[in-house]
Amino acid sequence: MATIDAPSQVSFQQDAEILRKACKGWGTDEKAIISVLGHRNADQRKQIRLAYEELYQEDLVKRLESELSGDFEKAVYRWILDPADRDAVLANVAIKKLSPDLHVMVEISCTRSPEELLAVRRAYQARYKHSLEEDVAAHTKGDTRTLLVALVTAFRYDGEEINTRLANSEAKVLHDAVEDKKFNHEEVIRILTTRSKMQLMATFNRYRDDHGASITKHLQGDSGDEFLLVLRTAVRCLNDSKKYFEKVLRNSIRRMGTDEDALTRVIVTRAEKDLKDIKELYHKRNSVALDQAVAKDTSGDYKALLLTLLGKED
Amino acid sequence: MATIDAPSQVSFQQDAEILRKACKGWGTDEKAIISVLGHRNADQRKQIRLAYEELYQEDLVKRLESELSGDFEKAVYRWILDPADRDAVLANVAIKKLSPDLHVMVEISCTRSPEELLAVRRAYQARYKHSLEEDVAAHTKGDTRTLLVALVTAFRYDGEEINTRLANSEAKVLHDAVEDKKFNHEEVIRILTTRSKMQLMATFNRYRDDHGASITKHLQGDSGDEFLLVLRTAVRCLNDSKKYFEKVLRNSIRRMGTDEDALTRVIVTRAEKDLKDIKELYHKRNSVALDQAVAKDTSGDYKALLLTLLGKED
Repeated sequence: MATIDAPSQVSFQQDAEILRKACKGWGTDEKAIISVLGHRNADQRKQIRLAYEELYQEDLVKRLESELSGDFEKAVYRWILDPADRDAVLANVAIKKLSPDLHVMVEISCTRSPEELLAVRRAYQARYKHSLEEDVAAHTKGDTRTLLVALVTAFRYDGEEINTRLANSEAKVLHDAVEDKKFNHEEVIRILTTRSKMQLMATFNRYRDDHGASITKHLQGDSGDEFLLVLRTAVRCLNDSKKYFEKVLRNSIRRMGTDEDALTRVIVTRAEKDLKDIKELYHKRNSVALDQAVAKDTSGDYKALLLTLLGKED
Repeated sequence: MATIDAPSQVSFQQDAEILRKACKGWGTDEKAIISVLGHRNADQRKQIRLAYEELYQEDLVKRLESELSGDFEKAVYRWILDPADRDAVLANVAIKKLSPDLHVMVEISCTRSPEELLAVRRAYQARYKHSLEEDVAAHTKGDTRTLLVALVTAFRYDGEEINTRLANSEAKVLHDAVEDKKFNHEEVIRILTTRSKMQLMATFNRYRDDHGASITKHLQGDSGDEFLLVLRTAVRCLNDSKKYFEKVLRNSIRRMGTDEDALTRVIVTRAEKDLKDIKELYHKRNSVALDQAVAKDTSGDYKALLLTLLGKED
């Protein structure tokens, strides 16, 4: 379930006027920006952008970028975009880094629904005049490339039908590869990049039943092995995305120096989806509420926006 | 340009009635079936199916299948389906063969537009409750699999923007691989499966300018090398699909024993697209009109349908 609290009746024109006022003059009224945008869903934010453009012949996103700064600016910019367009931006930033952030690529390709991933690929082309897979392929190499390109181009079957016999035989294929330490075996890549998520869950369950431990556990290994790290992240995202996101949040806060990029990314991309469930998982796992942990680790307008997206009452 | 001759004003109900009458009683009136369906475009055929279903509570496609037989039945069945659904059927038949018909897979993945290929993947899942790439991956192996899965999952950039510098450098990458006979080099696969068609054409042109011969010519080799054959077909389909289709038609007729599957496939899938251009290429290349060649090699209702789709006046 979602965490954001958006009223069903909204006047987009009035919202645009409030935002205009917040950006005008000497200072910027960040509180007003949060109180409007932090309580609007994706469709409403889009309508506000359109209303703003019509009223003031100005791009709201650009205006906000020029008014704001730092982590707050980044979070507002990520939040205001359409989800598919936002993922396209996240993917592009991740892959164009000197040392590409491959886990973000895995996260986007494995936690979004098949239709959502297609929408990201469309948005990516509209923005960058390249295909997503083209840029992923151009910035990676070897087995990692093979795996990542197959993950971002997948359009998995999204239905309920499961083949139990197949789950059994493919659990064995995976286990054989793990035992031989042939993690990059083409059959492993085939299974993880083409099977439906429901089918994969059945396969992973079977794996655990047969071998007394999860495949994720068996994929723990040399932290310098890039391919293995990417593979493991993919399995975790495919198997239980909420659990995966909980851990990203945990690491982003727990580490020396908060990882704002990861923290912002998870909160912004999940707030309208399943952040409520992720919050619950977090609370259970860490014996502290996520809001409290975030509040302790962040400050100012950035903190206020994150807490609003986390569903805090004003 | 298309070859079929479809009136803009059509009464779907009247068409359904004619088809019903043609299927009723002892014999079947194949001529009536051809005269209706052979002159209707994809959208009209869909409306006729709906009108037929509503009038007679019966699936027209199933009824025709039970009334007709042989090559004619197959051609009618292929023709009446929605293009994306038809491609899904063609792909499924090709990949499920004991010895999969990989060229059909390449043809579908490399001659359709990016959006058309997405529609095929959607139609495939709706019909078979599997993803297309899942079945391709399960029925192929090794480098051929890597290449084919990447081809069917591609969603290439479809715009006009070309990077000339990239065309130059990637033409060199391709040539180096060809010289070293490393046709399965991961860079070759990356380039052919991720770049836009416009970009690839620029790359292939540069290749020819630099090396005095087309890459297709340089990919000629051992006819027992499955990967090389698939790679070459992909390059031909991506570079000039009309020329590719002309050759498929030529081979389907010229060979001892007509290859009806290939003949039907090309005529049915291109009749509403570019069969007029392919006909012209055929005429130039073979000094005989395609209609004449088809008429000489086929017979009966099958021949009548193909000639109608080729644009012959009744």
